[in-house]
Amino acid sequence: MDQNPEQQKEEQVQNKEQLKQQQQPKQQPKEKQLAVKNPKGTRDFLPQQMVIRRQAFKIITDVFEQHGAVEIDTPVFELKETLIGKYGEEGGKLIYDLQDQGGEILSLRYDLTVPFARYLATHGYKKLKRYHIGKVYRRDNPSIQQGRFREFFQCDFDIAGENDPMVADAELIKIIDQIFTKLDLGPFQIKISNRKLLDAMIQIAGIPKTQFKTVCSSIDKLDKQPWKEIRQELVEKKGVSEEQADILSKMVQLRGEPFQLIQQLKEQKLFEQQGKEALDEMELLFNLLKYMNGLKNVIFDLSLARGLDYYTGLIQETVLLGGQLGSISGGGRYDDLVGMFSKNSIPCVGASIGIERIFAILEEKYKKSGIVLRENQSDCIVATIPSKNIDMVAEKFKIYDLLWSNGIKADVCYKLNWNLGKQLTYANDQQIPYAIVIGEDEVKQEIVKFKDLIEKKEETINLKDLIQILKQKVGK
Amino acid sequence: MDQNPEQQKEEQVQNKEQLKQQQQPKQQPKEKQLAVKNPKGTRDFLPQQMVIRRQAFKIITDVFEQHGAVEIDTPVFELKETLIGKYGEEGGKLIYDLQDQGGEILSLRYDLTVPFARYLATHGYKKLKRYHIGKVYRRDNPSIQQGRFREFFQCDFDIAGENDPMVADAELIKIIDQIFTKLDLGPFQIKISNRKLLDAMIQIAGIPKTQFKTVCSSIDKLDKQPWKEIRQELVEKKGVSEEQADILSKMVQLRGEPFQLIQQLKEQKLFEQQGKEALDEMELLFNLLKYMNGLKNVIFDLSLARGLDYYTGLIQETVLLGGQLGSISGGGRYDDLVGMFSKNSIPCVGASIGIERIFAILEEKYKKSGIVLRENQSDCIVATIPSKNIDMVAEKFKIYDLLWSNGIKADVCYKLNWNLGKQLTYANDQQIPYAIVIGEDEVKQEIVKFKDLIEKKEETINLKDLIQILKQKVGK
Repeated sequence: MDQNPEQQKEEQVQNKEQLKQQQQPKQQPKEKQLAVKNPKGTRDFLPQQMVIRRQAFKIITDVFEQHGAVEIDTPVFELKETLIGKYGEEGGKLIYDLQDQGGEILSLRYDLTVPFARYLATHGYKKLKRYHIGKVYRRDNPSIQQGRFREFFQCDFDIAGENDPMVADAELIKIIDQIFTKLDLGPFQIKISNRKLLDAMIQIAGIPKTQFKTVCSSIDKLDKQPWKEIRQELVEKKGVSEEQADILSKMVQLRGEPFQLIQQLKEQKLFEQQGKEALDEMELLFNLLKYMNGLKNVIFDLSLARGLDYYTGLIQETVLLGGQLGSISGGGRYDDLVGMFSKNSIPCVGASIGIERIFAILEEKYKKSGIVLRENQSDCIVATIPSKNIDMVAEKFKIYDLLWSNGIKADVCYKLNWNLGKQLTYANDQQIPYAIVIGEDEVKQEIVKFKDLIEKKEETINLKDLIQILKQKVGK
Repeated sequence: MDQNPEQQKEEQVQNKEQLKQQQQPKQQPKEKQLAVKNPKGTRDFLPQQMVIRRQAFKIITDVFEQHGAVEIDTPVFELKETLIGKYGEEGGKLIYDLQDQGGEILSLRYDLTVPFARYLATHGYKKLKRYHIGKVYRRDNPSIQQGRFREFFQCDFDIAGENDPMVADAELIKIIDQIFTKLDLGPFQIKISNRKLLDAMIQIAGIPKTQFKTVCSSIDKLDKQPWKEIRQELVEKKGVSEEQADILSKMVQLRGEPFQLIQQLKEQKLFEQQGKEALDEMELLFNLLKYMNGLKNVIFDLSLARGLDYYTGLIQETVLLGGQLGSISGGGRYDDLVGMFSKNSIPCVGASIGIERIFAILEEKYKKSGIVLRENQSDCIVATIPSKNIDMVAEKFKIYDLLWSNGIKADVCYKLNWNLGKQLTYANDQQIPYAIVIGEDEVKQEIVKFKDLIEKKEETINLKDLIQILKQKVGK
């Protein structure tokens, strides 16, 4: 008998469900169902992931330190009043508040930039070049696949202080270029613009200054939506006229090689009055970057807006080419933020590197490469052959003491009655390259069998030479 | 005219207020009063403190990795239900809750042990030797001087899995001994006991099992209060009889060199029935520790209680001798905790190192030693002599590009019009050892002046030899 399509569909679903139920017990053992999970939008880092994370952090901090940056740290939570009014309307909604349990009203930090500004004010700095790697918190809709978490790392580098124009800004872009070159994630583009140019464009289009923020937040979507949709939003929802939208339209779609676009803008006499200062700044920036060989991945992009409220000059965003991922770094100049916390305002420029997306790419890379990352860093284990005459447990741990006190990495197998084969299998499973084997004879003669578990070789050596030989083998 | 005491008191207060107002402007400049502070009980880490922190973490993680431990990380907050009922009555009150903003009910982690147990359950581990360094949160009464913060670091090392008795426990004590020996904070003592011995003592004294927890929490104060006061509390508030208190009194004050105390307890036949198994465990532990040379700082201390609910066997605490600080490490065996999150129970033993107190001691040590820790790790700067014919800014940054692309650490001075003296002063202030100086002549002849700012020497070298010479100098 023929079934109608609806019935067919339902049956398919049922079959799928049945299949799922049949498969589930294998994939997820029952006892696992009881287990408590980590909170939504957060992640545990497994040992393998920690190895990758440390590699990425090492590359990033090495570049930061190459440029003379010092490291600081601030608390995970701040006074709520410190964070309020810094992240625009959308950002502000995503802040995690702590429950009022008496005492101060606290919130989890949303980024590392506002805490940095607060830090400068609290400690009375006038200048500082610092980096800071830490977790930040946003009550956003998480998407693990897109690398969007509620708890995630930011790697921030900022230069605070009264400096000559665009020098720090240029170094910042150079640093971003160095980091993404070294991370080797594939081709990338550093988009650069200036908040003051955006300001000028809106002014040139004849849109009143009061609408600046709301128009900005529409333009900010240009990397995700076509201009047509944004234009519609501006005209229908934000009170921008058709004519104004047309003028804006021409400008925000301008992007290109930095000096070419500067030339084009000069020829078109676009920023001859409003925005002239900002355009001069950009030209100076590109020149400095040219000198320091930092221009090859830079694109001058007038559509760049950056959502946050606090930017006042340079804005930048890094994207991987050909990927579906969002930006992997963002930042800019924020000259007025510190002034919100202290009478002494300090001009600042900085960038955040969003590391979660980078982790995901690096993990994928390792998976594809087939390279197995060693989690257990141990150089060796001590394995014993049982004896009736000698306390081999005592002899085993005497050798461990010798190894540990000489800085050798030596893992312990916690089963004292395992036979030699099982002990060596343990070492193999943990990818530990060497095993020191002792039995009754070895103890009596003060020798050890030295097994190379990768090369499958064995030699007998004097106990007194063990440390020297091991240090040579592991390159210490 | 005589004043009555009330009036006198009020006037004194007024005078104090006046005095305060007079003093304040000197101590706190006006602009600082506006500055927003970090939350109570938290700290910012200044660059100098970060250098010390990294040194301490390096020592600790090196020892952890020497023993084959892998690193993991978990979120700063957990589901509230994960944390509830794990920390005893007192501990539970100190948990920070997040505000209910819709979605899951969350709390900041109180330690790294419960998240570790949850991690084991979530990911279905059967065994794991891991370390974890992270911040934990307690709404405690902060005392910066005593190193008690509301946000503070813990360095945890734990061994999970079904292992032979006391082997992992012994390695754990050895690790603690290695770490505090290497940190070189002064003489220390690792106090060891067994939760089952405490259980036995209370039973031997004839106190009902239902009172175990409350009697425990009194005994736990023995390192801060004399026995006399604790005895009084037990008798007057906890319903312990005079006779029971006397029996307990003799036992909890027993402490000494491990094998001596074991011998004494055997002679006194104290734990012949209740506690026999625990005493045998302790003897095995001390033997294993003797083999691995880990016994020299260990004391067997029957007064040790440890406040937390989850310990089931070995308990340990490390204290610095002669100091007023509390414990610098604590931990023990918790065989039932993972079973609270999963059907598979996994026996575990571990320790937390409380790093804040260690930081304070190391900071003090550096201050006294007069050793100035370098914050800025840069090897050199590039300084220029102005020229009318050549764009020295371009030349300067070309050299920076050369340095950076060769892995040299080179800080930038952001004032382009400073004279040579000012540029060199900047390098000196930052304790940067070398300066590469170029002017018109140097550019034309493709040479640089290489200044050693510490030795106060200068030599002229070819630009093409610069990297090689610098790498030699900085030991790369």
